[in-house]
Amino acid sequence: MQNFVFHNPTKIIFGRATIPLVGQETAAWGDHALLVYGKESIKKHGIYNQVTASLENTGIKITEHGGVRSNPTLDHVRTGIEKVQKNGCTVLVAVGGGSVIDSAKAISAGSPVKHDVWKFFTGKKSIKKTLPLITVLTLAAAGSEMNSGMVITNEATHEKFGFGNKRLYPKTSILDPETTFTVPPDYTAYGAVDAVAHVLEFYMTASDPATPVQDRLMEGLIQNSMDACNRCLLVPDNYNARADLMWTATLALNGLTAAGLGRVGFPMHMIEHSLSALYDIPHGAGLSIVIPGWLTWFSSINAVRIALLGKKVFPLAEADNYSDEQMARRTVVKLRKWFNRIGSPTSLGEAGIPKIDIEKIADNAISLAKVWRLQGYTRKRIEEILHLCA
Amino acid sequence: MQNFVFHNPTKIIFGRATIPLVGQETAAWGDHALLVYGKESIKKHGIYNQVTASLENTGIKITEHGGVRSNPTLDHVRTGIEKVQKNGCTVLVAVGGGSVIDSAKAISAGSPVKHDVWKFFTGKKSIKKTLPLITVLTLAAAGSEMNSGMVITNEATHEKFGFGNKRLYPKTSILDPETTFTVPPDYTAYGAVDAVAHVLEFYMTASDPATPVQDRLMEGLIQNSMDACNRCLLVPDNYNARADLMWTATLALNGLTAAGLGRVGFPMHMIEHSLSALYDIPHGAGLSIVIPGWLTWFSSINAVRIALLGKKVFPLAEADNYSDEQMARRTVVKLRKWFNRIGSPTSLGEAGIPKIDIEKIADNAISLAKVWRLQGYTRKRIEEILHLCA
Repeated sequence: MQNFVFHNPTKIIFGRATIPLVGQETAAWGDHALLVYGKESIKKHGIYNQVTASLENTGIKITEHGGVRSNPTLDHVRTGIEKVQKNGCTVLVAVGGGSVIDSAKAISAGSPVKHDVWKFFTGKKSIKKTLPLITVLTLAAAGSEMNSGMVITNEATHEKFGFGNKRLYPKTSILDPETTFTVPPDYTAYGAVDAVAHVLEFYMTASDPATPVQDRLMEGLIQNSMDACNRCLLVPDNYNARADLMWTATLALNGLTAAGLGRVGFPMHMIEHSLSALYDIPHGAGLSIVIPGWLTWFSSINAVRIALLGKKVFPLAEADNYSDEQMARRTVVKLRKWFNRIGSPTSLGEAGIPKIDIEKIADNAISLAKVWRLQGYTRKRIEEILHLCA
Repeated sequence: MQNFVFHNPTKIIFGRATIPLVGQETAAWGDHALLVYGKESIKKHGIYNQVTASLENTGIKITEHGGVRSNPTLDHVRTGIEKVQKNGCTVLVAVGGGSVIDSAKAISAGSPVKHDVWKFFTGKKSIKKTLPLITVLTLAAAGSEMNSGMVITNEATHEKFGFGNKRLYPKTSILDPETTFTVPPDYTAYGAVDAVAHVLEFYMTASDPATPVQDRLMEGLIQNSMDACNRCLLVPDNYNARADLMWTATLALNGLTAAGLGRVGFPMHMIEHSLSALYDIPHGAGLSIVIPGWLTWFSSINAVRIALLGKKVFPLAEADNYSDEQMARRTVVKLRKWFNRIGSPTSLGEAGIPKIDIEKIADNAISLAKVWRLQGYTRKRIEEILHLCA
């Protein structure tokens, strides 16, 4: 196990009928909230009314900032920052999934400074201060509700960049699984894929794999994501299934899985970010395209690790007689089958991305590989992996 | 899954050569520390020197408060409170295991008030303010370094009482596994038993057992405790084994395992507290005596749950053909065998406690059962369980 610091100060309020607590949680940090949200769906399902009623009941002034898109954009973040600065908002309330929360994080970092917020993403400036952020989660996927990371797309440059800073942890996140009852099957699946991907990235790239404590945690989280997603797709308003998926997705990227693993990378996300930046496909869909290809490529580097995952997550009676290479292949097959079963694409073609674009995608990915310092991810390697995703 | 709030603000600094960070972590909270520790062993192993050098280098004044015993006493806590009040200490630094950290927590709660600190333990007063606490852990066992609980023994009344309050979380805990290289085999084993017991209590008593996410986490932590303990006993200075045991013991009682389980109880600890209060035996030794007896009693209530644990933690090829009752019995046998193997006692007799004392022990336990509101734990039931521990 490698040295680590773990310090996750986010307060989680989890369960039924918890949204009315958003007022008191917000009032502890400010009296004028920028309310960040996405589509009108939160109005249709009564979530918007619950949030605004609770905020108003505790005397909090609201400035609206709806319209966050999936793959949230820098332009919309900049507009939010202008609203905060112009109206004197003192706290942010994000109601939505990872895109909404990430937008609110970017606004919370960009509001106290005079320079453009994108400078944080390109590493030219570092975050020294943020506005406090309260979140109400409505999608089990990104884990942003309990971590210090954010991902934003710069449409002008076609860059989808992300990073983490300890000042970005939400103060409080409210997780009511019932808000996800109406999430359609495709986005339920994409969310579960995202959670699986977050665990897989660390499991596969850890510089120190002598970490049985973390391994068991990660293996369990992958099993939970798959099990819970299957149950959600079967019965969309199964409370326990939605709760299991929601809490799993949060735990999958709250820092616990990575603590002690040493250096970890996010190579699958790095490649996926180019897919969703260039083609605006859902993040989870992009991930289920990249994961089997990346794992197939990685099999020649570390079949043992993939085999271990397979033995734990897809136990097989005959597994004892398999070589690591056979077991690794089998693991990739099993994972791909599960993606297919839940309706998440597993090839570029399925998402309508032509093979001929591979060079262009690799070109895009290479810039994020540099920002994230993913050593060895040359254009050639990224192209090789993308061909395995075709 | 039941509603829950999870909010654990403790900062963990984990790994080799981390003790010299204690000065800067402490300086963030105060300039005059009460240094709480136990035996002289931390001086022999150089830990004391590292801590005091780091504190002095950052300009922190030190008031000494050594001599905390295993099963820490109220009298020693009271002396610590007097020292804080007399010398104007503004922060506490605890260097040791759970006993030392719990003593420091009690001092941190008792120092700002005029009434006696024991009133918090009997529920007559509630904690409104504490002094900040920094810990340097030297024993993998109690989990106190990352939770809000504490247990203190009142020798005058023979009561070993404990409870939790959100103001008791340490601000920072430094966990260097190398400090545990010299922990002797018996205390290494008792620590692992304690970690297993913390997980078992919640696993068995959850009012809502429909919690696969938490189950997988808990099953993994029990396996980790056992595996890591076995490796520590084999090679006491195996860094990874010590690190795995230390981080497992922390995760076993930091709130994550219980989140979502609904009401949980601590009945095995309740009975054990009477053993260590009356006979001053090590806590872990008391637990390995109580656990098999309690589980045997509990088999008639919920064999399914014990069988599930056994299937996950002690997988057996033939397990599929077992009834739940058979599997539960087998689980208790396996657990008892492991306690024996690591040298932790599994009967009252082994600890020199005569059967004739059972009435007296039950008499003592009943008062804690009341404070902890453990419904159904009548004197008769406690005696019945104790007979199964004989």
